[in-house]
Amino acid sequence: MASNYTAPVQTLIDELGRLPGIGPKSAQRIAFHLLKVPADEVTRLAASITDAKSRVRFCDRCFHVADGPLCPICADEGRDGRVLCVVEESRDVVALERTGEYRGRYHVLLGAMSPLEGIGPEQLKVRELVARIEPEGVEEIILCTNPNTEGEVTAMYLARLLKPIGLSVTRIASGLPVGGDLEYADELTLGRALEGRRAVED
Amino acid sequence: MASNYTAPVQTLIDELGRLPGIGPKSAQRIAFHLLKVPADEVTRLAASITDAKSRVRFCDRCFHVADGPLCPICADEGRDGRVLCVVEESRDVVALERTGEYRGRYHVLLGAMSPLEGIGPEQLKVRELVARIEPEGVEEIILCTNPNTEGEVTAMYLARLLKPIGLSVTRIASGLPVGGDLEYADELTLGRALEGRRAVED
Repeated sequence: MASNYTAPVQTLIDELGRLPGIGPKSAQRIAFHLLKVPADEVTRLAASITDAKSRVRFCDRCFHVADGPLCPICADEGRDGRVLCVVEESRDVVALERTGEYRGRYHVLLGAMSPLEGIGPEQLKVRELVARIEPEGVEEIILCTNPNTEGEVTAMYLARLLKPIGLSVTRIASGLPVGGDLEYADELTLGRALEGRRAVED
Repeated sequence: MASNYTAPVQTLIDELGRLPGIGPKSAQRIAFHLLKVPADEVTRLAASITDAKSRVRFCDRCFHVADGPLCPICADEGRDGRVLCVVEESRDVVALERTGEYRGRYHVLLGAMSPLEGIGPEQLKVRELVARIEPEGVEEIILCTNPNTEGEVTAMYLARLLKPIGLSVTRIASGLPVGGDLEYADELTLGRALEGRRAVED
């Protein structure tokens, strides 16, 4: 049965549907929204996409998003270069920066290992991570990949790779989310939270 | 605290976040996806947006998406012009067409009445609907707005407006979805399904 959409609409729906987290229904909804709103709003969206793509690059050193050769964090002389926080994506850097607790630097892998999707260490910025350690005098690496299968596999791989170099390699803690409810925590999180229990300080 | 995104990234996230159903987290995720994928994929998305916006228009008669003055349905002489199905959006036309059961024409309101959002009949294609009735010899109007608050209010309004003209005005049936489970139906749907019960035919 014909879809009854004219070709440009179908193309738009298809392209939107390729975005992460956008299913066919959402793609349709967004497409019709775009057809309905004023043209300048749509132009602004299209421009923001091409503009970001052409102007934004990844930091030469840590692969966080940047608008020059170095990102603001790598360019900041006040950051402690001895500690590297390894994350999957730039958005993780932003999340960690929001805590205001970390004064070291970052290394963005641009993904996580996923055998199912054919993503191994070669597809990630792992070689670049190892290459930074000596010249930058890195002493501790905190593995902050996500606490899911891909993130854990990546952390495990990196720990095995990096420990022999004689670095301190740590993993960010898993546990109950602050403000969360023990009753509603899934058993994996709860198990991890128990496993990671710490002595109560006076 | 600074967001640590460079300006073009923040602009992109903001623009994506204005789309329906895209929250700040999804906007971030899509933005970083776009920064990571090959440039030609991104160009294709931006082009599909501007292309659809510039080439697609609404049908002069029924306001379904079209690439000429009339949509394929209005241009089709074989459709029964005496029956008009009134829907909120173009995607509803496509959904109804998929059933293959309807041979009449459509009228797309381009939205539904919503006092909260300040959308009244003047913001919708209601005047245009009334104007079609006589010249096109419309005899029945099927109100196919969504079975939610806005859709019901719109249907009620249209029924009151159109009945005095001497037309047959019907409302699409509400009830249990086919393949659905009575046990899991919400009470409103169940109430409607009871209310709309029909004699079993031999």
